[in-house]
Amino acid sequence: MGRWEPNARGRLAQAALTLYAEQGFEKTTAAEIAAHAGLTERTFFRHFADKREVLFYGTEMARDLLVRTVADSPAGATPVDVVGASLEALGTQLQENPERVRLRDAVVSANAELRERELAKLAALAEALAEALRGRGMSEPAARLAAETGIAVFKVAFARWMSEPGPADLPGIIRASTDELRKMLATRAAA
Amino acid sequence: MGRWEPNARGRLAQAALTLYAEQGFEKTTAAEIAAHAGLTERTFFRHFADKREVLFYGTEMARDLLVRTVADSPAGATPVDVVGASLEALGTQLQENPERVRLRDAVVSANAELRERELAKLAALAEALAEALRGRGMSEPAARLAAETGIAVFKVAFARWMSEPGPADLPGIIRASTDELRKMLATRAAA
Repeated sequence: MGRWEPNARGRLAQAALTLYAEQGFEKTTAAEIAAHAGLTERTFFRHFADKREVLFYGTEMARDLLVRTVADSPAGATPVDVVGASLEALGTQLQENPERVRLRDAVVSANAELRERELAKLAALAEALAEALRGRGMSEPAARLAAETGIAVFKVAFARWMSEPGPADLPGIIRASTDELRKMLATRAAA
Repeated sequence: MGRWEPNARGRLAQAALTLYAEQGFEKTTAAEIAAHAGLTERTFFRHFADKREVLFYGTEMARDLLVRTVADSPAGATPVDVVGASLEALGTQLQENPERVRLRDAVVSANAELRERELAKLAALAEALAEALRGRGMSEPAARLAAETGIAVFKVAFARWMSEPGPADLPGIIRASTDELRKMLATRAAA
């Protein structure tokens, strides 16, 4: 495996983001990313399947965080509370480095292929969330409904957070969006 | 433009679906699809950019139907009623030819690239729905929230419809899923 490369994954991800933002995703090669991180191209491909995947470095961690938060929720918590707590945990994590999240979002938004991959990753997060809810004894289709709706609310809240010019509270925006959805659904006209 | 080809788009889409189901998406060429429909390859590419796009022939019609139903909704209708009516209209249309929808779903589900494209098309439908809601004077982020949630409910309802062994009522499943989500959101624990 060659010499020890402390936090190679994180360094490669950071280098990729810097180069993608500076010179564009299309124009950047894996070799350049590796060089920028002070690593070899071989090391790059030991950590990532391709240069798209570097941008989704965080998705695996996001999935683990969602699943763990669902599993750790108190036994009596309602599905909405459980899903809300897991999405807010993710929001809290993203908020730790808003500039990096913003840079990544700009790179992904500028490329159709990356936007498609992003949607696939969000769908996978919804799947994992549904699976974790089933693990708590929640039945179908309630688990899938709670998970898909949760990810939909997260998408809207995230976009709103990104559109704020200054610092904004992502977990707070997630809570507010959920409240807004609850009110919207409660005020339908009588059938 | 050559001779008149009555309903060439529809014939190509039907031929593609038949061949994809019989011999697989990967193994089928645009030339084979054209031949099966009694048309030339040139005609194929006049109607579709590639062999993936043939499977998304219905998405444009779906978008038009959603947008038109939103625009035609009575002035006093709530956002949930408007979104519900448009999704149920789409459900009614899909239900007209359930075997074709089932065949298409099997082809798309079996291929990762097609699943990604499907997610991109669903995201585009959510965008169009949000735009139509803004056209009715609904503000952001409510419009996006209603649209994204609507598409999330539709996805779950559609999967449930597909999993039913016999004939099932898709608009009814969409309504039931919306009701279930409403109840779920109403029964959160006190903060």
